[in-house]
Amino acid sequence: MPRYRLVLEYDGAGFVGWQRQTNGLAVQQVIEEGIHAFTGETVTAIAAGRTDSGVHALAMTVHADIAREMPASRIRDALAHHVRPHPVTVLSVEAVRDGFSARFDCVKRHYLYRILNRAAVPALDRGRVWHLSQPLDVAAMNAAAAHLLGHHDFESFRSAHCQAETAVKTLDTLEVAREGEEVRIACSARSFLHNQVRIMAGTLVEVGKGRWTPADVKAALDARDRIAAGPTAPAHGLYFARAEYPPR
Amino acid sequence: MPRYRLVLEYDGAGFVGWQRQTNGLAVQQVIEEGIHAFTGETVTAIAAGRTDSGVHALAMTVHADIAREMPASRIRDALAHHVRPHPVTVLSVEAVRDGFSARFDCVKRHYLYRILNRAAVPALDRGRVWHLSQPLDVAAMNAAAAHLLGHHDFESFRSAHCQAETAVKTLDTLEVAREGEEVRIACSARSFLHNQVRIMAGTLVEVGKGRWTPADVKAALDARDRIAAGPTAPAHGLYFARAEYPPR
Repeated sequence: MPRYRLVLEYDGAGFVGWQRQTNGLAVQQVIEEGIHAFTGETVTAIAAGRTDSGVHALAMTVHADIAREMPASRIRDALAHHVRPHPVTVLSVEAVRDGFSARFDCVKRHYLYRILNRAAVPALDRGRVWHLSQPLDVAAMNAAAAHLLGHHDFESFRSAHCQAETAVKTLDTLEVAREGEEVRIACSARSFLHNQVRIMAGTLVEVGKGRWTPADVKAALDARDRIAAGPTAPAHGLYFARAEYPPR
Repeated sequence: MPRYRLVLEYDGAGFVGWQRQTNGLAVQQVIEEGIHAFTGETVTAIAAGRTDSGVHALAMTVHADIAREMPASRIRDALAHHVRPHPVTVLSVEAVRDGFSARFDCVKRHYLYRILNRAAVPALDRGRVWHLSQPLDVAAMNAAAAHLLGHHDFESFRSAHCQAETAVKTLDTLEVAREGEEVRIACSARSFLHNQVRIMAGTLVEVGKGRWTPADVKAALDARDRIAAGPTAPAHGLYFARAEYPPR
């Protein structure tokens, strides 16, 4: 059956997350029902990352099988039409080889965490940024981030609900930068633990506020205990930015 | 009576514009009622620019008189609290000299027009950008913009409802730049005619699409007739960016 790779942008507010749940609307459901609407087919859409409720995506890669023969551009236009009432947009659709998996073939996942760091709450970016009025020390945050880079047991940086067998992961990038009134945290790895990016962001913010030193973050990592790390940053500041795949 | 200068950010969607109208909620009303809520005073808030319905503000300067003696920081916090249900935020409040006018003392107004120039409709920036899927020729748009710079009769670039006595204005900057998937038009002048920025944006887009040449824009200016210019770009892509005042 022909397989397609879809790239989606979505606003996570109002969704229970990527994956179907019983308690509300999931982005997965919007895509699967959108494909059903113009093909009559019941498909399963698999994403590179299963974003939590409230988490946004700038470019989420997804795959799905569609039996009916049609050009990728027609699938894109038809799906775009059917998802239109929802804050989900189809950036691209292309045919891919059988067996391609948006989830298992992904070699790197990129996330972005946006903090609005000014006195006033956001009006235009409400629900899109974490608002923190206390000025953050970005240099200290980067010094702390350096301790998390590389191959570690990230037990301290995963939620109690994380189902991964091991917490050992390799963090490839974790960079903090000020851009105007925003502080942006960019990170990438082959894969992340549940809530890892949000706990890293919440922990780096403790450093940015001067409550923690960079060495405290190293100690939190070494503790291998969730209680040792900082709070989980809110979902609405987090964006799944991009999924990387090996060159074809 | 003590006079204060307020700087506001707001999302124009859902408002009838800055100025009070009988047909819906105005930003002016939110501010005036917000001040009334903690002072009991009936004030008039005057803005540097009277944005139309749907037009956003990144930093709109406003003045208002408040008889009750209180520090500017307390006014800021109290007003921020009272406007919070609305997509309006108070960036700053400061005491200013008697007679300062946010409207009449403003020596330069800056606007930004945002176009999302890609195939897919926006998900995250819905209502914040004008979506145009046809790739725009930014170099041609800038060549056309050069014809509008300077001192001209902008009769072709104002709405039928414009109440200004003369259409002669000096346009200080009009620059088009591509930033990622966006095409951004930045412009500034001491003052603008009603809908001038939106008509200039709509006209430059005709050039960007290749339907008009830059010389056509010069001809439209020379015609001194609204019918000669391009369409009015939608309100939701426009931002009042900043008001400039003489140094104190």
